[in-house]
Amino acid sequence: MTPLPPDRYFRPDPAVRSIALTLYAGIADLPLICPHGHVDPALFADPDARFGSPANLLIIPDHYVFRMLYSQGVPLESLGVPSQDGTPVETDPRAIWRRFAEHYPLFRGTPSGIWLRDTLSTLFGIDEKPSADNADALYEAIDAALATPEFKPRALFERFNIEVLATTDAAGDPLPHHRAIRHSGWTGRVIPTFRPDAVVNLDTPGWKDHLDRLSAASGVDIYSYATFIEALENRRAYFRELGATATDHAALTAYTHRMTEIEAEGMIQRALAGKSLRGDAAAFTAHMLTEMARMSLEDGMVMQLHPGSLRNHNASVHARFGLDKGADIPTRTDFVYGLKHLLDLYGNDPRLTLVVFTLDESTYARELAPLAGHYPALRLGPPWWFHDSLNGMRRYFDQVIETAGLYNTAGFNDDTRAFPSIPVRHDVWRRAACDWLAGLVTRHLIDEDDAQAMAHDLAYGLAKRTYKL
Amino acid sequence: MTPLPPDRYFRPDPAVRSIALTLYAGIADLPLICPHGHVDPALFADPDARFGSPANLLIIPDHYVFRMLYSQGVPLESLGVPSQDGTPVETDPRAIWRRFAEHYPLFRGTPSGIWLRDTLSTLFGIDEKPSADNADALYEAIDAALATPEFKPRALFERFNIEVLATTDAAGDPLPHHRAIRHSGWTGRVIPTFRPDAVVNLDTPGWKDHLDRLSAASGVDIYSYATFIEALENRRAYFRELGATATDHAALTAYTHRMTEIEAEGMIQRALAGKSLRGDAAAFTAHMLTEMARMSLEDGMVMQLHPGSLRNHNASVHARFGLDKGADIPTRTDFVYGLKHLLDLYGNDPRLTLVVFTLDESTYARELAPLAGHYPALRLGPPWWFHDSLNGMRRYFDQVIETAGLYNTAGFNDDTRAFPSIPVRHDVWRRAACDWLAGLVTRHLIDEDDAQAMAHDLAYGLAKRTYKL
Amino acid sequence: MTPLPPDRYFRPDPAVRSIALTLYAGIADLPLICPHGHVDPALFADPDARFGSPANLLIIPDHYVFRMLYSQGVPLESLGVPSQDGTPVETDPRAIWRRFAEHYPLFRGTPSGIWLRDTLSTLFGIDEKPSADNADALYEAIDAALATPEFKPRALFERFNIEVLATTDAAGDPLPHHRAIRHSGWTGRVIPTFRPDAVVNLDTPGWKDHLDRLSAASGVDIYSYATFIEALENRRAYFRELGATATDHAALTAYTHRMTEIEAEGMIQRALAGKSLRGDAAAFTAHMLTEMARMSLEDGMVMQLHPGSLRNHNASVHARFGLDKGADIPTRTDFVYGLKHLLDLYGNDPRLTLVVFTLDESTYARELAPLAGHYPALRLGPPWWFHDSLNGMRRYFDQVIETAGLYNTAGFNDDTRAFPSIPVRHDVWRRAACDWLAGLVTRHLIDEDDAQAMAHDLAYGLAKRTYKL
Repeated sequence: MTPLPPDRYFRPDPAVRSIALTLYAGIADLPLICPHGHVDPALFADPDARFGSPANLLIIPDHYVFRMLYSQGVPLESLGVPSQDGTPVETDPRAIWRRFAEHYPLFRGTPSGIWLRDTLSTLFGIDEKPSADNADALYEAIDAALATPEFKPRALFERFNIEVLATTDAAGDPLPHHRAIRHSGWTGRVIPTFRPDAVVNLDTPGWKDHLDRLSAASGVDIYSYATFIEALENRRAYFRELGATATDHAALTAYTHRMTEIEAEGMIQRALAGKSLRGDAAAFTAHMLTEMARMSLEDGMVMQLHPGSLRNHNASVHARFGLDKGADIPTRTDFVYGLKHLLDLYGNDPRLTLVVFTLDESTYARELAPLAGHYPALRLGPPWWFHDSLNGMRRYFDQVIETAGLYNTAGFNDDTRAFPSIPVRHDVWRRAACDWLAGLVTRHLIDEDDAQAMAHDLAYGLAKRTYKL
Repeated sequence: MTPLPPDRYFRPDPAVRSIALTLYAGIADLPLICPHGHVDPALFADPDARFGSPANLLIIPDHYVFRMLYSQGVPLESLGVPSQDGTPVETDPRAIWRRFAEHYPLFRGTPSGIWLRDTLSTLFGIDEKPSADNADALYEAIDAALATPEFKPRALFERFNIEVLATTDAAGDPLPHHRAIRHSGWTGRVIPTFRPDAVVNLDTPGWKDHLDRLSAASGVDIYSYATFIEALENRRAYFRELGATATDHAALTAYTHRMTEIEAEGMIQRALAGKSLRGDAAAFTAHMLTEMARMSLEDGMVMQLHPGSLRNHNASVHARFGLDKGADIPTRTDFVYGLKHLLDLYGNDPRLTLVVFTLDESTYARELAPLAGHYPALRLGPPWWFHDSLNGMRRYFDQVIETAGLYNTAGFNDDTRAFPSIPVRHDVWRRAACDWLAGLVTRHLIDEDDAQAMAHDLAYGLAKRTYKL
Repeated sequence: MTPLPPDRYFRPDPAVRSIALTLYAGIADLPLICPHGHVDPALFADPDARFGSPANLLIIPDHYVFRMLYSQGVPLESLGVPSQDGTPVETDPRAIWRRFAEHYPLFRGTPSGIWLRDTLSTLFGIDEKPSADNADALYEAIDAALATPEFKPRALFERFNIEVLATTDAAGDPLPHHRAIRHSGWTGRVIPTFRPDAVVNLDTPGWKDHLDRLSAASGVDIYSYATFIEALENRRAYFRELGATATDHAALTAYTHRMTEIEAEGMIQRALAGKSLRGDAAAFTAHMLTEMARMSLEDGMVMQLHPGSLRNHNASVHARFGLDKGADIPTRTDFVYGLKHLLDLYGNDPRLTLVVFTLDESTYARELAPLAGHYPALRLGPPWWFHDSLNGMRRYFDQVIETAGLYNTAGFNDDTRAFPSIPVRHDVWRRAACDWLAGLVTRHLIDEDDAQAMAHDLAYGLAKRTYKL
C-alpha cells in the first residue's frame, strides 16, 4: 500500500482532477463542523481520558467494521462485542485485532476500508495493509501511539481542528459530561443534541424507565400529556443552556400527524397504565413530530428527522447482543404523504429548520428534492449511514441538487461514534464535493467563482448556518 | 461569466467531446418539434402581441424560478405571483427583477440556472450573472430589447426555427386563438392538444362548470354517460380540424380500468347530482383512460399519460395562490398493475400510440423500459419536469434504452410555458443526447454511422413520427 | 462495422483504459463458470446434436430478440414463434432471418445488439451489420458454418472453455439427458439445478400434472404434506447424484413464512382436491421457501431466489403463444420484511448459502446490500435479466459493493437459453468488472494488487466458491 496520494478519490480525467485539486486546496484546512454525531462526551470531560486498546478504538465499537466480518461468518463474540445473554466474548484485544487483520480484504472497495486506511496512515503513520503477517506489529505500533499525550481525546480534538462537535443525548440524560466540559476551562466546543426518541416512541423497551429519567432530570412529575410536554420543554431549555442548537428524531416512517390534546392524553394515560392499544405508538410518534416542530418554532432549535431504518432486523443478534449491532436495515420510505401534516402546519415558516435524512435513495429526486426545493422550512441532510460513501455522495449530488438547489441542503455531518475517523469522513466529503464541482466546471455548468463559493459552503458554511453554529 | 462555450454540457473527456461535437454539428440546426407544451396561443393570434416586462417574461409565470426563491424564504407575493385571497402582491416589475437578481446564486447547478443563462446570453446578449449590482442595468437592457419588433412572439417563433408548436387546451376550450392563427395567414404551425382532465376527473374543483363549458363548446347537452362521451368525441374531432394530433392526460396514479356502461352511467349521474361516492373519481378516471385509448384507436390521436404528481401539496400556498405554484410533488407510481387493463385491451395494436411519462425514475428500468420494450402500442416519453435536466437525461438514457430500445421512446418535448426558454431546452437535450451517444461510440457499443442516425432521431425524427407531425 | 476492438466496453479515459486492459488480460482466458442457466441439456446428450437453422439458433428461442421486434409491430407468428392457439406461424427460417435483418437497427445500444454482434463476429467471422441487403448472404454463411463439426454443441462447449454448465430442471424431471451425458464418457461437466416452482406454487396451471410427474420421478405416492416433502427430498438427493449443487426458486414476491405442519397439510389437501382458498398459493410458497432453506442446510445445496417478475403480463400473447414470450415485467419488491422470517430461522448459519436476485434496482443500496452485508447466509446474485447489461452492471457495482462488500456477492451467471451467446455474456461482465476496478484504482480506492485479486474473483472465484463448484 502506497502512502495516501494527494489526488485520491478524484476522477482520473486530467481536466477534472486539476480543477478539483484547486478547489480542494481552498477548503482542505477549514475547521470541521460536526453538527450530528455519536461520540461519547465522557472522552472530553476528563482531561486525562484515554481510548483504550487498538481493538477498543477501531473495532469493538464500530458496527460498520464488525458487521462485515460477521457477514462472512466471524462470530460477534470472537470480536469482543459485548453480549447480553451471558455468551462469553473474546477479551484479548490482540486476538480481536488479529481476526480483523486476517479479514482485511473484506473491506476492499468499501467506505470502512477507506476510513481505516486513512486513519492508520494519518494518525499512526501506518501505510501497510493489515494482514495475518503484520497484525501483531501493527497492534504494537498503534498501542504505543495511544499511550502518548498526543493521543488524548482533547489533544486529537484540537489536532483535528474541530470547531464544534455535537453529541446525541437522551431527553432524560442529566448531561454531566457536558457540564463538566463547560466548567473545565477547556475551550473545545462540545454540545449536546436533544434526542427524545425513547420517551416519544411509546413502544420503546423500558419506556417507563426512560420516562422516569425524564421526570427526574426535568423535575417535572409526569402524569399527563401536559406534564409530559412540560418536561420535554424544560429539558430542551436545559440542553440549550449547554449549547445545544438541534434536536434529533428517528422513526420507522416519516408519518406526521396532529391529534387533539384529548387523544394525546388518552394515549399517554394508556401508556402510563401499560395498556397501549395497537397503533398508539405510531400515532403518538407522528403527533409528537409535529409537536416537536411547534417547539422548534418557539425555541429556535433545528429539528432533524431520519426515518426509514427497521431497527434490529436480526432477532437472534438483537437478543444476544442488544441494540445497534449492524442489523438495522433501511426500508422503503414515503415523505410526500408522510410529512404533509407537519408541513401544512409549519412548512411555510422560514423560522423553522427541519433537516430530513433518508436511507431510501429513490426518494432523492422523486420526493425530497422537490419538497426541499419548495418549502421554506425544509432542508435535506447529507447522504447518511450506508450512503456516507463516495458513490452515495455522487448519487446525492446528481439526484438532489438540480431540483433542490444547493442552498436547500444542510452540508455534511459525520454521524459517527468512531472519533478517530472524523477527519477522514469530512475529507471524503470535501473531496467528493470538489470532484462533483469540478465536473460541473468542465461541463461549463458553473464557473470557477461559483465552484469556489459552493465548495466553501459544502465544506463549512451550509452546516454552520443550517445548524445555527 | 464567460460567453457560452461551444462545448458546453459535454463530458470533458477529449475523445468523447470530439465525437459529441461532430454529432452535435449535424443536428444543432434542425427545426424544433414541440409536441407537448403550455405556451399561451394568444401570443401568436395577434401579430402585434408583446411579452410585457422582463419580470413578466422570465419570473412571474415560471414556477421553476419562483419556487426556488420561495424555498429560501422569499414570499411569493413579493415576486408578483398573483394571489387569490386578496393578499396584495408586488406590482413593480423592477422590484421583482431585483429580488430575483439578488438571489441568483440559488440557481447554481440547476436547470433553471442553465436556461436563464442561455436565454440571457442568446436572446439578449447578456453574459453577466444577475446580481444586486447589475439588476437595474440588466432590466433596462431586456426591457429595451422586448420593445423591438424582433421580440414579437411571432418573430421569435420564426427565429427559433420552430416547425410545430403544440399547446395544451381544455376539452371545453373554444380555441379562439388557434382559429385566429389559422385564419391570419401566418404560416407558423401552432396546434392544440386535447386535455380533458377537468371533465374526466370528477373531483376537479368546479367540475360542473367545466362540464358546462364542454357542453357549450360541443353543442351537446350532457345529461348522461352517452352524451358525455359524445361531447368528448365531438371536441376531439374539432381539435383535429385545428391540427391537433394528440391528447394529454394527467392522473394521480397510472391505474386503468374498464367498467360497464351501467356503472359509468351511475357515476356520471351521481356526479351531476353532486353526490359522488368515495372512490368514484379514481374509478371513473381509470375507466376514462381506457375509453380515451379506444377513441385514439378510432381517430388516430396519440394519447399521452403522465401520472404520479400529487398536485397542490402545500395547502396554504394552494389556498392563497391557486394551482401550479410549485408545490406539485411526485409520488411513487406503479405502471405494471396500473396500465395492465388498458394494455390488455389495446396494447397489442400498433395503430395506437400511448406515450407514458413518469416522475418516478425507479420505474424506468424496472417497469417502463420492459413494458415499452414489449407492447407495440407503448412509447416512453422523455425525462419530464424535474427530470428535464442534464442528470435527468443521463439517467434516462442509461436506465431506459438498453431495455426499451431507442425506437420505443418518443424523442424530446419542452413541456414549458416559458416560451423564450424553448430553444435552450431543446439544445440541452440535443447536447445531452450527443454526449451520451459519443460515450457509446468511444466504448465501441455503436459506430459513428449509428450514432449519427440516432442523434437525428433523438433531435427530430422520434418526436415527429411518434406524434404524427 | 469494424471488427471487434480489443478495448471495447471500457471507458475512454486513457488511465482507466490502460489499467482495465491489464486487468482484463489477466482474466480473459479463465474458464467459464456457468452456475445458473437454461440451456437444453439434450444438446449435449447426443454427440451428434445440431443447432438447426440460423433462425432456430439466434431468433426463435431468444425472447430478448423477438420481443424487441414485436414491440415495433412485427407479429410474433411472422418470426416463427410457435403458437398455442392454432395461429399459423412462419416456417421458412430464411424469411424469419430476413425480417430480423431488416429490423436490426432496433438493437442499437441494447445488450442484444452487443451479444449478436459479438456472436456473429467471433463465431461466424461476420463483421457486417445485418440488413435487408445482406440478409441472404449472412444466412448462407451461418448455415454453412453450422453444418461443420466445429459447430456441434459439444465442440462449442469445449471451444468456449466452459468448466461447468448448470441447467435448470423441474423437480419432476427424470433428467434423462443428464444421465446420458454422465454415461457417455464425454468429460464436459453439465449439471442439473433443482427448480421445484411448478409444484411449490399451488396456482401453477396444471399443478396436479406436475405433482404427478414429481410422484412418478420420486417413486413417492404424494397424498399429504409429509409425502410431498418426502418426494422433494428424494428428488434433491437424485439431482445431487447427477452433480447438482443448487436449487432455484422464482416467486412473485420475496415473502417467506413458516406455518405449522397442520396448516401446510390443510393447504396440500385443498390443493389436491382442487379447492384451494384465496391466499393459499402465496402462503404456501412463502412457507416452502423457508422449508427449502431448511433442506439446503441439511443437504448443502445452494438456494437461489429471484422474486419480483410478474409473469405473462400480456394476456393475449400468453393465450396465443404461452409462457416466456417476453411479457414478464418486473415489479416493486420488498426484501426487508419479505425475507425476515427465513433469515430469522436460518440467516445466521454460515452453512447455508442463499443467493438472492432482484429486478428492482431500488433495492440494491436500500435493502439487499445492507442485508447481504450482515447475514452470514446471504449472498447477492449478479445483475439479472434486464439488468444483465453494461449499465446494469455499473449500477450494481456502484450501488452494491460499498455496503455489501465484494465477498457477499456471487459472481456472474449468464442465465441464458441462448448457448452461443454464453462467451460474450461472460466477456461483457469481465470487461465491465475490469472497467469498474480500473476506476477504483485510478481514484486510489484500491491498489492494483487488490484489483487483480478482485478481478479474478469476479470472473471466476466468487461463482465457483458460492456454488460449491
